[in-house]
Amino acid sequence: GFGVNTFESSMSFDEFKLNSDGMLTVVTQDYKTNEVLMVAYMTKEAFEKTVETGIMTYYSRSRKELWTKGDTSGHYQYVKSLTIDCDKDTLLAKVEQVGNACHTGSYSCFFTDLVKKEYKDDNPMEVFQSVYDVIMD
Amino acid sequence: GFGVNTFESSMSFDEFKLNSDGMLTVVTQDYKTNEVLMVAYMTKEAFEKTVETGIMTYYSRSRKELWTKGDTSGHYQYVKSLTIDCDKDTLLAKVEQVGNACHTGSYSCFFTDLVKKEYKDDNPMEVFQSVYDVIMD
Repeated sequence: GFGVNTFESSMSFDEFKLNSDGMLTVVTQDYKTNEVLMVAYMTKEAFEKTVETGIMTYYSRSRKELWTKGDTSGHYQYVKSLTIDCDKDTLLAKVEQVGNACHTGSYSCFFTDLVKKEYKDDNPMEVFQSVYDVIMD
Repeated sequence: GFGVNTFESSMSFDEFKLNSDGMLTVVTQDYKTNEVLMVAYMTKEAFEKTVETGIMTYYSRSRKELWTKGDTSGHYQYVKSLTIDCDKDTLLAKVEQVGNACHTGSYSCFFTDLVKKEYKDDNPMEVFQSVYDVIMD
């Protein structure tokens, strides 16, 4: 079930490499299926609030303010893990997503395929996922 | 098996929203396990080459040139799908990865955990993955 956890990070925000806007790029992923839900950005304040509260907080570039996702929609993201990449410029967050990640009502923000090769037949993980979905129904 | 495919994109690069460096952020994911391998950037030329060849080509910000991943290491990434997000500023690429994605020799560039909640016991997909690994051995 859902549950808030507070954490301590093994690395400080000051050790990360920021983008040209002075922010850290964050990829947020469903912790069970590994589906990528969204990409957003964090300031130091957003990162520290995320670690302290166990709930994803980003920096809204359009509203220019801290943005705890779910505060208006209820669609909170509970942190399961935070992992930094080899050159320390991108954070990967695995989360338990309440409701949908996308403001359009889609579970993930990535729903517009530009190109797609058919590969479902080679993909045993999708079979397992189907079996699991049936079991859970 | 591996195989090169050429594609046509349903959307042109000019329709995307670029970051402050004039590039498109790209998240690259293993198409079978959904593991996030790396985050990199594309110019229009890199995007068009990727679509035309079916092999991931980025723009190297450090070397300031087109970078077809694998040209020196052999670790090519064959495109399975390209998906743009709701606000058209991030591309998600699902690929078949040859060898390792990370220059450190790690399969993924994301291997440094900052915080991690134990959740393996709740995660049936990991059980399925283990079963699958055993079957394949």
